[in-house]
Amino acid sequence: MSEFVVCGRLLDTLALREATAEVAALRIDAEGVIVERAPDGTDAFDALRLRDDAIVLPPDHVLIAGLSDLHIHAPQWPQAGQALDRPLEDWLGAYTFPLEARYADPAFAKAVYADLVLSLLACGTTSALYFSTIHEEASLELARACLAHGQRGFVGLVAMDDPGLCPPDYRHASAREALDATRRFIAAVRALPGNDRGLVQPVITPRFIPACSDALLEGLGALARETGVRVQTHASESDWAHQHVIERLGCTDSEALDRFGLLRPHTVLAHANFIDRDDRDRIRARDAAVAHCPISNAYFANSVLPLREILDEGVRCGLGTDIAGGYTPSIFENARQAVTSSRLRESGVDAGKPPALRGGVAGARVDFLEAFYLATRGGAEALGVSAGALRPGMMFDAVAIAGRRGHLRLQDDDTAATLVQKIVCHAGRETIVRVWVDGRAIKLKSDE
Amino acid sequence: MSEFVVCGRLLDTLALREATAEVAALRIDAEGVIVERAPDGTDAFDALRLRDDAIVLPPDHVLIAGLSDLHIHAPQWPQAGQALDRPLEDWLGAYTFPLEARYADPAFAKAVYADLVLSLLACGTTSALYFSTIHEEASLELARACLAHGQRGFVGLVAMDDPGLCPPDYRHASAREALDATRRFIAAVRALPGNDRGLVQPVITPRFIPACSDALLEGLGALARETGVRVQTHASESDWAHQHVIERLGCTDSEALDRFGLLRPHTVLAHANFIDRDDRDRIRARDAAVAHCPISNAYFANSVLPLREILDEGVRCGLGTDIAGGYTPSIFENARQAVTSSRLRESGVDAGKPPALRGGVAGARVDFLEAFYLATRGGAEALGVSAGALRPGMMFDAVAIAGRRGHLRLQDDDTAATLVQKIVCHAGRETIVRVWVDGRAIKLKSDE
Repeated sequence: MSEFVVCGRLLDTLALREATAEVAALRIDAEGVIVERAPDGTDAFDALRLRDDAIVLPPDHVLIAGLSDLHIHAPQWPQAGQALDRPLEDWLGAYTFPLEARYADPAFAKAVYADLVLSLLACGTTSALYFSTIHEEASLELARACLAHGQRGFVGLVAMDDPGLCPPDYRHASAREALDATRRFIAAVRALPGNDRGLVQPVITPRFIPACSDALLEGLGALARETGVRVQTHASESDWAHQHVIERLGCTDSEALDRFGLLRPHTVLAHANFIDRDDRDRIRARDAAVAHCPISNAYFANSVLPLREILDEGVRCGLGTDIAGGYTPSIFENARQAVTSSRLRESGVDAGKPPALRGGVAGARVDFLEAFYLATRGGAEALGVSAGALRPGMMFDAVAIAGRRGHLRLQDDDTAATLVQKIVCHAGRETIVRVWVDGRAIKLKSDE
Repeated sequence: MSEFVVCGRLLDTLALREATAEVAALRIDAEGVIVERAPDGTDAFDALRLRDDAIVLPPDHVLIAGLSDLHIHAPQWPQAGQALDRPLEDWLGAYTFPLEARYADPAFAKAVYADLVLSLLACGTTSALYFSTIHEEASLELARACLAHGQRGFVGLVAMDDPGLCPPDYRHASAREALDATRRFIAAVRALPGNDRGLVQPVITPRFIPACSDALLEGLGALARETGVRVQTHASESDWAHQHVIERLGCTDSEALDRFGLLRPHTVLAHANFIDRDDRDRIRARDAAVAHCPISNAYFANSVLPLREILDEGVRCGLGTDIAGGYTPSIFENARQAVTSSRLRESGVDAGKPPALRGGVAGARVDFLEAFYLATRGGAEALGVSAGALRPGMMFDAVAIAGRRGHLRLQDDDTAATLVQKIVCHAGRETIVRVWVDGRAIKLKSDE
């Protein structure tokens, strides 16, 4: 690819409660990096806009940074929007584990993963942090799908060896086997044809502490230290999981992961609903991050994440869909649920009690600007990707939104804060018209 | 119009936790009434399917009953997805009332209302119960928009005369003026050209008790009795509104409305978050109904509706978007939020407390089948419309959904319950391909 220019109305955010909207031109170099940003009214803007390689967006379009999905189970895509009324044990045992076991068949995986990656890109998700399954070939198919369709993919071969918790036909036979598989997978992803720029990265992925032996967790920590590969896992998701770790290891998930060497820069902890102040301090100190999955949490976490505290204390955080514990592949829909759930966390839920006894947490609300930050820049920072805003030095991962399509009714005089709120509330697949990842234009699947 | 046939995969529900999916043919007579339903495998099906006037839906499509929106403020459409982070007083005083005051200009109203009615139809909302403003001409424009585009519209000229609560430039000058205006509006809607079938109906609409004098409420009750026109109002929405009525009138909203003669068959009470068992008994006894607006409630009602109790006790209920207290015109998105909010009502929200002290209400959850019922048959029953399912004797208000578009991935072997859950979780404007109201095919606006 060669250098090019994109001109249009830009909307992005570099900090929690701030957003900038302006007409500007971006110059993107041959490596996909934004190397210049010139606002309308400058000579530089005029010069860029007139170039032959300038893509000039229509005036009713808005260009935002691409979205990051920090937690998604790729193999559960066929199950999205199913069985959420089941208890977690039943959901896992009768639905999820049997489905995941089918990925022993790489052909099955290939068809599902192509559809998923294309669906996420159509939703504006330019970076995704995936759990796959324990199957190496199927997991490589996921990595290949990301490469083929141009998504920034972080792909985790799942490691799980605990015979008590995992089904006999769907687990690694031993810690050693899981460690060997993870090591092979890291090498295989790095060596994939077409991955010379590292668009797709392997991720060390213990499913969650209850599904892994101490030996496996220790070995994965050592492997992370040795290879520098990112780590992801579930942490403190539900009352059950949180207590299970305390009883087994005498400490919370974050402390246990830290001891095993798994709480590292850009380690992403999915859910983390039950983390306390000490956990948050530890996560921040290690430069790790939380993947907030607000829709899934309403179904399987028995509570709402203390997001207000996470943001106020400067803990890295982004959003996850948690397909299929959450039903939607849309980060926008999760962003609005993050705001909505934070309001219920603030007020409490039981109208039969007076406000002070309703179980709410004073001051818990987060706003739409914060949710937009989490969806874009927050997610990229959690992953350690130089993206998430439209600024010089960052990779050009971007999404063009048609401003008067679907439910959206953007106006020329909308402030940045209003644009953000309207986009978080109304944007979705049907309003997304162009997507770029790593400076490359994505060929979106037409939705016939 | 003349008789015609529609063949395809039909999905509907006549009771709370039941749904039926089958391939069948419907025969719709010249009056728009379903007069025959023949399942695949019968001679009648074969005969209907071969008729020249048969519309045969593609095999991946699903036909459901049209959706009802039981609470929507039409004039607030330009404000959808804005200012939800403001306190209610500020939201009303600085945003909502000034916007509503602009509808003194019928031309402004005409443009907004055409866009709104077309947007709702595109979302599958075949019946809508509207609050307009105090402006008669603008409110007639809303009624005309429903007629022009073919939506079943229930349009309420808002009555509000309390000088303490209403802004000076946006209220009726007296109870008498509000009553005269309401009477004129009822006659004008009934006499609208093209409304001979009564597709659009006027609705008596005291904004809420705090905004209305006793004289106005009494007069509107008498007018309802005299004319038989439906009634809608807000009831027991927030702590503030609920307490305000108790302090002013010594009883709850439902009792006060009953005394004023406003709690009648098919009276729709918007929100009703703070109703207790006595209120629910009264609402059921009067054959009135609740419009549940789960998104809006998270922002302005400080709690979650006791929906489980409402359903278990047989109180009529449907869903409302509450544009612009809620941001989305989609009843599907409100249906899934109804389920999600019910889960948080069950669990409580504060992860810092043990489960038993988390403020939840045991057994509060509702499921997706129930949400689907509320969106379709529940809404139609609340309004007293013979629709909401695809059964002989009902009006043909229906929506065809493309089963593998957007986020939807319907399978041929999905059970009725699975189809329902996937549709509630994933359906939206982009998956809706055809809409009929009153037996008439709607010309949907293309989403360029």
